[in-house]
Amino acid sequence: MKKIINTPADFVNEAVEGIVAAHSNQLELYKGDIRVVLAKNRKKGKVGIVTAGGSGHLPVFLGYVGQGMLDGCTVGNVFASPSASKMADTIRACDSGAGVLCLFGNYSGDGLNFDMACDEVDFDGIETRKVKVRDDVASSPKETAELRRGVAGMVYAFKVAGAAAEEMRSLEEVVAVVEKALANIRSMGIALAPCVIPEVGKPSFVIGDDEMEWGMGIHGEPGIERSKIKTADEIAERILDTICADMPLVGGDTVSVMVNGLGATSLEELYIVYRKLSALLKDKGVEVFMPHVGEFATSMEMAGLSVTIMKLDDELKTLLRAPASTPFYTNHNK
Amino acid sequence: MKKIINTPADFVNEAVEGIVAAHSNQLELYKGDIRVVLAKNRKKGKVGIVTAGGSGHLPVFLGYVGQGMLDGCTVGNVFASPSASKMADTIRACDSGAGVLCLFGNYSGDGLNFDMACDEVDFDGIETRKVKVRDDVASSPKETAELRRGVAGMVYAFKVAGAAAEEMRSLEEVVAVVEKALANIRSMGIALAPCVIPEVGKPSFVIGDDEMEWGMGIHGEPGIERSKIKTADEIAERILDTICADMPLVGGDTVSVMVNGLGATSLEELYIVYRKLSALLKDKGVEVFMPHVGEFATSMEMAGLSVTIMKLDDELKTLLRAPASTPFYTNHNK
Repeated sequence: MKKIINTPADFVNEAVEGIVAAHSNQLELYKGDIRVVLAKNRKKGKVGIVTAGGSGHLPVFLGYVGQGMLDGCTVGNVFASPSASKMADTIRACDSGAGVLCLFGNYSGDGLNFDMACDEVDFDGIETRKVKVRDDVASSPKETAELRRGVAGMVYAFKVAGAAAEEMRSLEEVVAVVEKALANIRSMGIALAPCVIPEVGKPSFVIGDDEMEWGMGIHGEPGIERSKIKTADEIAERILDTICADMPLVGGDTVSVMVNGLGATSLEELYIVYRKLSALLKDKGVEVFMPHVGEFATSMEMAGLSVTIMKLDDELKTLLRAPASTPFYTNHNK
Repeated sequence: MKKIINTPADFVNEAVEGIVAAHSNQLELYKGDIRVVLAKNRKKGKVGIVTAGGSGHLPVFLGYVGQGMLDGCTVGNVFASPSASKMADTIRACDSGAGVLCLFGNYSGDGLNFDMACDEVDFDGIETRKVKVRDDVASSPKETAELRRGVAGMVYAFKVAGAAAEEMRSLEEVVAVVEKALANIRSMGIALAPCVIPEVGKPSFVIGDDEMEWGMGIHGEPGIERSKIKTADEIAERILDTICADMPLVGGDTVSVMVNGLGATSLEELYIVYRKLSALLKDKGVEVFMPHVGEFATSMEMAGLSVTIMKLDDELKTLLRAPASTPFYTNHNK
């Protein structure tokens, strides 16, 4: 295992310490707890937006804590849900009277723990709502879309929710617009090489030197097919076709496109894929608004990428364009 | 070679096409030439700032073309200098009467070609100055510091030069402040695993599963020592010691710190290293201003990182803080 770490047991806490040290103008800890990261100077009276999840996916999750996106994040061990009690702490810290939206990926541990956390803060009179991100089309067929996993599409969900809350919308209104956004978000990923969980010390899966896996999850969950490595154009085409089979795009539609590197894939490769997606969408008469190319939701040093398409109406465009200032996502459009 | 590409021969052009497609609001091509990338809406009358270099280092070089940093960039093949004639085109496009600063890494091909390009545009009456970035302390001892290679420190140099030019300083003034910045910038890198140049198809060097190389260059140039892999804290300490032996830091100094991933190293690891650097600097009484942690100058999918320290005075602080808006570097501090 070639990693620049001290000990596997210290991996998560030391990474969070580094992030909080580097971004001390934007982040603070809840009562010194390294696993509960909050935005500094949280706006009073607005709906709180919180998330939680396992580590190893930077910038997801805590990298989006800051003005215009998340108010707080509970940090778990690598690829493992944090505890319900720390989630409850996060919710309490982020409530300022208007209630709290818990917005997170559809993973069983996170779901169960957020259920318990919301029950716990209910005793304190804090109103909560839960919305699960289920954007990965490869993780379950359309008929059982409620079983799908949450992947990079959650970054768009954080952005929309955060912007809606900044506009001082009510909890119900924030939930409604996030659900609208999620109904229009689809993702699919491919992997070329695995990552190594520090405390495990060996690769999360084995794959041939000339092979790729279609639809693999961000924790190395098996995908839908293993094949020889295809070209960038073939990969772009198949992913877009799969997404469009689930969420048709027609001429005149506007979308945002995210090409997300899983960790070890170069920016050059991500842009080669974006180039093809952009051409394919143009051929369909679909306009691209605010493309996102880079690392948004990784699996440490996994090689591969995912593509997310978010279909936009005027309201979602406005929320996507709204200002945000977090350690890993900055938007200063006016 | 596991890469998401079409053909090795198309790697550079297709990556640049993707970048220009994704950032069409900020970038344009010079007369349709995919190898000459310019900032849109270049401010008239200011000093032009241009660079050039081989591909495979994104965000370096063309990722910093935009408001507040570079006006133009000539794009070479992977790890190879672009031609003098395309550099001359870039200079011509970026001159609006106040002259052009050519700011680039100290590599022989880039140096020779910029010499020819500057001679060529001299016939057109365009005033140019050349400044070479030589920040890599591991690439040559202090006594022959003029032989050092340019690595991630060039990003700070681009920022300072771009901000000074935006202030409408003269060519001589921009050169002077960039030279002051460079006199206060030092970098050093380590590598854990090589990258593969698409047209070569095999790793740029061989290294044992438990080994690391100290001081390796961003093209895989040999470093100063190969050792067993050390801990993150040991790596942070040795790099900082090496930099401080070359450029002493004392209590009361203010620095910016860049922890730069070379491609395949996770953000978590970069922040674990930043955490230690931040503690070591605090122990010395050195204040950190605007730390930069992420991928700023890569070697495709090489595993490893570099650390850059830039010692700041009030003028350099102001220039570092000044607004910038480029595809890969955004600063909206007021």
